[in-house]
Amino acid sequence: MTMQAEIITIGDELLLGQTIDTNSAWIGTELSNIGFDIHRKTSVHDRREDILDALESIKDDTDVVIITGGLGPTSDDVTKPVLCDFFNTRLIPNEEVLTMIRNMMKRRGFTLNENNRRQAEVPESCRILTNAMGTAPGMWFEKKGTIYISVPGVPAEMKYIMSDHVIPDLKKRLSSQTIIHKNVMTYGTYEAKLAEILTDFEKALPGNIKLAYLPSFGVIKLRLTAKGDDFGKLSNIINEQVVKLYQYIPEYIFSENEESLEMVIGRLLKEKKMTLCTAESCTGGKIAGMITSIAGSSDYFTGSVVAYANSIKTDLLGVQNELIKQYGAVSEQVVRMMSEGARKLFNTDYSVATSGIAGPGGGSEDKPVGRVWISVSSEECTVTEKQTFSNDRSINIERFSRAALNLLRKQIISK
Amino acid sequence: MTMQAEIITIGDELLLGQTIDTNSAWIGTELSNIGFDIHRKTSVHDRREDILDALESIKDDTDVVIITGGLGPTSDDVTKPVLCDFFNTRLIPNEEVLTMIRNMMKRRGFTLNENNRRQAEVPESCRILTNAMGTAPGMWFEKKGTIYISVPGVPAEMKYIMSDHVIPDLKKRLSSQTIIHKNVMTYGTYEAKLAEILTDFEKALPGNIKLAYLPSFGVIKLRLTAKGDDFGKLSNIINEQVVKLYQYIPEYIFSENEESLEMVIGRLLKEKKMTLCTAESCTGGKIAGMITSIAGSSDYFTGSVVAYANSIKTDLLGVQNELIKQYGAVSEQVVRMMSEGARKLFNTDYSVATSGIAGPGGGSEDKPVGRVWISVSSEECTVTEKQTFSNDRSINIERFSRAALNLLRKQIISK
Repeated sequence: MTMQAEIITIGDELLLGQTIDTNSAWIGTELSNIGFDIHRKTSVHDRREDILDALESIKDDTDVVIITGGLGPTSDDVTKPVLCDFFNTRLIPNEEVLTMIRNMMKRRGFTLNENNRRQAEVPESCRILTNAMGTAPGMWFEKKGTIYISVPGVPAEMKYIMSDHVIPDLKKRLSSQTIIHKNVMTYGTYEAKLAEILTDFEKALPGNIKLAYLPSFGVIKLRLTAKGDDFGKLSNIINEQVVKLYQYIPEYIFSENEESLEMVIGRLLKEKKMTLCTAESCTGGKIAGMITSIAGSSDYFTGSVVAYANSIKTDLLGVQNELIKQYGAVSEQVVRMMSEGARKLFNTDYSVATSGIAGPGGGSEDKPVGRVWISVSSEECTVTEKQTFSNDRSINIERFSRAALNLLRKQIISK
Repeated sequence: MTMQAEIITIGDELLLGQTIDTNSAWIGTELSNIGFDIHRKTSVHDRREDILDALESIKDDTDVVIITGGLGPTSDDVTKPVLCDFFNTRLIPNEEVLTMIRNMMKRRGFTLNENNRRQAEVPESCRILTNAMGTAPGMWFEKKGTIYISVPGVPAEMKYIMSDHVIPDLKKRLSSQTIIHKNVMTYGTYEAKLAEILTDFEKALPGNIKLAYLPSFGVIKLRLTAKGDDFGKLSNIINEQVVKLYQYIPEYIFSENEESLEMVIGRLLKEKKMTLCTAESCTGGKIAGMITSIAGSSDYFTGSVVAYANSIKTDLLGVQNELIKQYGAVSEQVVRMMSEGARKLFNTDYSVATSGIAGPGGGSEDKPVGRVWISVSSEECTVTEKQTFSNDRSINIERFSRAALNLLRKQIISK
């Protein structure tokens, strides 16, 4: 039997859409990695009756319920008293928690206030899960064979308590069923096309393997999920399927280890001891930001010029003014000079440049919003590529950046 | 009576945590803006029984249910047949939808395939909501006084159908209760401290007004929610409270209109007809990316140098090598020269520079991970600021960037 889990996230802001719920995604990943099936995720208001309702609708066969949020120091946080009612217990001051909070406030140079003191009151019947990242402790309850864990909604605090206390403890209690996920990353075509190419592959999948398509800004993750008893056997079966996938879509796969494009590029550049810079117009620093989001990127990433104004394209990157006048800033000629100029300026092995129209303004019949020119330069050659997307500003910027990273990746592996 | 809504999001990837559910946040915002109370959000697997279970657990007094996902062209998408069962209807080919899909594929240079054809089959009893952004149409059902709307999970498609068809139609059906939100944005202190300062303010709030604290990377949004019948009266009451908030926390408020720091900066620079550039080390282009995420930023943003390598700090920004040797790259002396050098290079009114240690490596006792030096330069003066955060790499970069934007904002408004 697979262990069953549910996630309840509490907070008005989640329902009003003012906060995007990243916590439940993180918890979902962690619990499924250790073999749980998360069969439902529910978000409710910071309201007594809604929280009770969610707790009471938990199915009997659920093994673990993770509850986040509503433990803050402010009066809109009501989770603790509601938990006392649900578990028929009461709040009592906890000396250990109070001492932790006092020490934490001292380190930051603050003194204890009434709100902090209230955070040191915990339900009598729970086991305390200490929180080194903040003032609200986690709480572990058990009722009729189900484990209920309440953690703060602040992501860093939730992650600390889950990683340090909850996940290790739950691992020990697991049953024998094993679930393996394998994520094969693709770029270069759209979902329906990929599904068409993979029709026969899907039909031939063993019964205990499932395939899902997860598109995100042009990258489509193919997730293979295998269920069974024997980890070794499952690994073999799933690896055979990955080998088959390469036969169907060799040109689209860029990683079989759930790496992003920027991770693959970082790995390749490190291996080859080569360096990179960017020259960005429409992407406005997004590509540099993606590359430097990877720890250790200073080993291969030298820097970037964001050339938003045309004068920066000419003065810093050496693009001839005449080219901009004749062809416009969004053109093959200009983006080529941008990448070549950047490579010289930063003295790197590779450079990648973008010039496009992210929107909503600035488009024309000839050069619509969503048009981007991309260029990658190396010692041997400079290549360019034109792409046209049709989304809003922020999505266009995301898509431009991935298209540029993929062209760069292809150039690096072609050497 | 407030109209009640629920959101059901369908997709294995949501429960496995491989996709963060941004759709339900967007829907939550839109529905609450037109006065709905979203009392629950549920995510379930692409599994027949789980979807049916979620549909059957909808409460009788729910007015509208928005269902996203599971409408893709691939076989892991099962929502349509399940909806047929729930509404006791069957799938029939729809000529209008087929024509739309055919035209869309043609424009992109593709031909219709079997998967596309299946997307043109829709439940007989629903009203079709056309989708100009993709191949899966939205569907509008009604059953026992509740409206059920099914839309694709691809954000751009969901948003198009909701904005173009669903929201305008729902608006017409609304009852008389009005809900107003006012979001006051603060930066500069932490949640418990803000709550302490606002204790008396909160106690004195009228009964129909609620205050919530929504922290995000150092920015704390204070959300005031007022409920009542009369829009004019509610507006007056809530505006009075905002005036009071300014008396309590004048130094922390940077907007009362839910603007981000980069939006406020853009607005101020446009008003003053002034220009900006950035020189980024540890933030790696993040600040430039935030600034250029705003449409129209080319009016005031000239560009950026991401100076990841020290050689770029010296060669492009004119930081003296001796300063880096003597004080290190993460120092007041170096960040000051970076901002002054960038302002000269880009010939702008303002510049903002960062140099810090995002982690996980590179820290020392003297300069721990999380340390950042920030500098803002203008014609009159250059100011610097030291901040120390204690998070992981990605959060540190987010916090560094907001700290820098806030220092810039303060300099702009001080003139």
